[in-house]
Amino acid sequence: MSATPDVDAALATILRGADELIVESEMRKKLESGRKLRIKLGLDPTAPDLHLGHTVVLNKMRQFQDMGHTVIFLIGDFTSMIGDPSGRNSTRPPLTREQIEANAQTYFKQASLVLNPEQTEIRYNSEWCDPLGARGMIQLASRWTVARMLERDDFTKRFQGGVPISVHEFLYPLMQGYDSVALKADVELGGTDQKFNLLVGRELQKQYGQEAQCILTMPLLEGLDGVEKMSKSKNNYVGITDVPSEMFGKLMSITDEMMWKYIDLLSFQPNAAVAGWKKEVEAGRNPRDIKVAFAQEIVERFHSKSAAEAALADFDARHHGGIPEDIPEVSIESPDGGIGIVQLLKQAGLTPSNAEAIRMIEQGGVKLDGEKVADRMLIVAKGVTVVAQVGKRKFARVAVK
Amino acid sequence: MSATPDVDAALATILRGADELIVESEMRKKLESGRKLRIKLGLDPTAPDLHLGHTVVLNKMRQFQDMGHTVIFLIGDFTSMIGDPSGRNSTRPPLTREQIEANAQTYFKQASLVLNPEQTEIRYNSEWCDPLGARGMIQLASRWTVARMLERDDFTKRFQGGVPISVHEFLYPLMQGYDSVALKADVELGGTDQKFNLLVGRELQKQYGQEAQCILTMPLLEGLDGVEKMSKSKNNYVGITDVPSEMFGKLMSITDEMMWKYIDLLSFQPNAAVAGWKKEVEAGRNPRDIKVAFAQEIVERFHSKSAAEAALADFDARHHGGIPEDIPEVSIESPDGGIGIVQLLKQAGLTPSNAEAIRMIEQGGVKLDGEKVADRMLIVAKGVTVVAQVGKRKFARVAVK
Repeated sequence: MSATPDVDAALATILRGADELIVESEMRKKLESGRKLRIKLGLDPTAPDLHLGHTVVLNKMRQFQDMGHTVIFLIGDFTSMIGDPSGRNSTRPPLTREQIEANAQTYFKQASLVLNPEQTEIRYNSEWCDPLGARGMIQLASRWTVARMLERDDFTKRFQGGVPISVHEFLYPLMQGYDSVALKADVELGGTDQKFNLLVGRELQKQYGQEAQCILTMPLLEGLDGVEKMSKSKNNYVGITDVPSEMFGKLMSITDEMMWKYIDLLSFQPNAAVAGWKKEVEAGRNPRDIKVAFAQEIVERFHSKSAAEAALADFDARHHGGIPEDIPEVSIESPDGGIGIVQLLKQAGLTPSNAEAIRMIEQGGVKLDGEKVADRMLIVAKGVTVVAQVGKRKFARVAVK
Repeated sequence: MSATPDVDAALATILRGADELIVESEMRKKLESGRKLRIKLGLDPTAPDLHLGHTVVLNKMRQFQDMGHTVIFLIGDFTSMIGDPSGRNSTRPPLTREQIEANAQTYFKQASLVLNPEQTEIRYNSEWCDPLGARGMIQLASRWTVARMLERDDFTKRFQGGVPISVHEFLYPLMQGYDSVALKADVELGGTDQKFNLLVGRELQKQYGQEAQCILTMPLLEGLDGVEKMSKSKNNYVGITDVPSEMFGKLMSITDEMMWKYIDLLSFQPNAAVAGWKKEVEAGRNPRDIKVAFAQEIVERFHSKSAAEAALADFDARHHGGIPEDIPEVSIESPDGGIGIVQLLKQAGLTPSNAEAIRMIEQGGVKLDGEKVADRMLIVAKGVTVVAQVGKRKFARVAVK
């Protein structure tokens, strides 16, 4: 059978933004078969507040759904119910069945903003891992060698560096691989850091006489800083529950260069449209226009079209007369009960006197965090940091100590 | 508590012939406690014909029994029911429950010639291994590191030599160790090749909050050749079901030097008696006397006192007027139907003529394989080899071709 244009297009969509597809020729065959493929994504049953970094693989799943394939959310509840048996990691206590299901629902609810929930299968791997029993676990463990397990990057490094690896850590990739056998997965998605584990699944399927899954790894999305991986702890993330104006503003803050990667990984605009934009920008169009369109697409996905429009309007309003990027930082002392706005402005050096402060407030020329201050008796609590603005040009970021 | 003479004597008995006791001070404490100790010996549920090499650890168990302790035969049925899951070793097919119990009974029946069966507990490790389940197996695996597992001699060699080690092989020492936890073993016995596994048990017990078992390793017994480990395949063994005369004769064939090791590991004579013998031999006593006493003790253990006496008488008979060690070997031609005894003696050069041969037969002076020949018409079959004797001094080993 020669490749149809449909299969070529499907492959191009699958490859967009992807780090690696193993093996493309097998993927092509699976697509050509016309079968409804089974696309697996393994998830820890934690309950994260999803950010755009998490949605990279979800977007890819959505593309598979749009091609008519079946997407499987595989919740790794089995090992989560064990926790960290080495006891070294106190942040991983065992989870109960109820916690796991609640977490999975939380995750699924958020993921449904990207995925079509009707076309998504949710499975829990305890379904087939528990029945393995002690004997099945030994049999599974017999299917891989120690040397090949130590080829996994992090194991290699730890082993060479003398950092202990517990024997049970060698069982986890095998169980993850066995999930693929149990699910008869055609494709497994994961981050680039998951490549080894995904390959184990591929190999185990062959050992069990199944057609091997293709593996598709997606790159990690950098955060707004363009350097570190997007994560909550780095505070460089766009949460999918961020309010529209915040989400929009954050996306507008990425560099013009990073924008293209974000678009590849996060936008649902077809490849052709993206290629068109790139040409336009090369021909001199302001990349900001593209960024606005992209940011609006994302806000619309997680909120609504009207929210996206409002966010743009708000953004434009702020960036004419908005807050400049670099403003002085000031620290002032406050009584326990907080400090009055008049004293704050004076002490922060934004007005030469209390009287001038009162006058500016009464003229409507004072803002805190962008909100006009109407009451000159306003108290700012001890411990907070606010952006204070007097008139058009005077700003300070004031820490009330 | 200071050591009692009883404890000193018990320790000396325990240490006799042993390769290593870890840790002697702990063993002393256990003995001083006056508790009935639990002595574990792990066994594969194979059905061997036991030879004296196998009885080395059994003898040590018997010594513990004689001190009033409880001896546990731990049958490793759990892993035997799995077989070799890697499929590399076709000589280790999975055993059924019935085969395992039959093998254990065969083993136990033979071992009962050494042990007191009334004071022996038989346990099967599937009792606690199966209930571990897949989760328990992961938790168990979390208690040891990859690096420490690779410290086991054979693993080190295979890993360095690039010989594959399957991941499940790392689980076996842990399961063997978990057996000690389940049994609350005080002492585990094994060959020197088991030292690593025994130490795993010791450590796991500590992790489970138990008093750690002492481990007592016994050396491998050399075979009759005094060089190789005793084994059936080397044909250098004394089987415990060997007939008395064979058992006695084989034991008499060991060197005077090897005799002492055999006595240390196989005789139940107290240490003091053995020390006395050594002194006597040093003072000029023929070590053969000691060897006879030792060989009789062993024949008596596996047969009876009268059998031991008969074996000695038989041995003496053969070795006074017996057949000398070096006799000439002769080959003679025979018709298809065999050769007459008269022709045989003449052709083998044992008599100068047929007439002389007939005369010697009629005088009762001819033996074949030690049996007097009464009939001068006796035919010796083509293809056999016989020891022919004429009078007191003429011998020949005659191959009838």
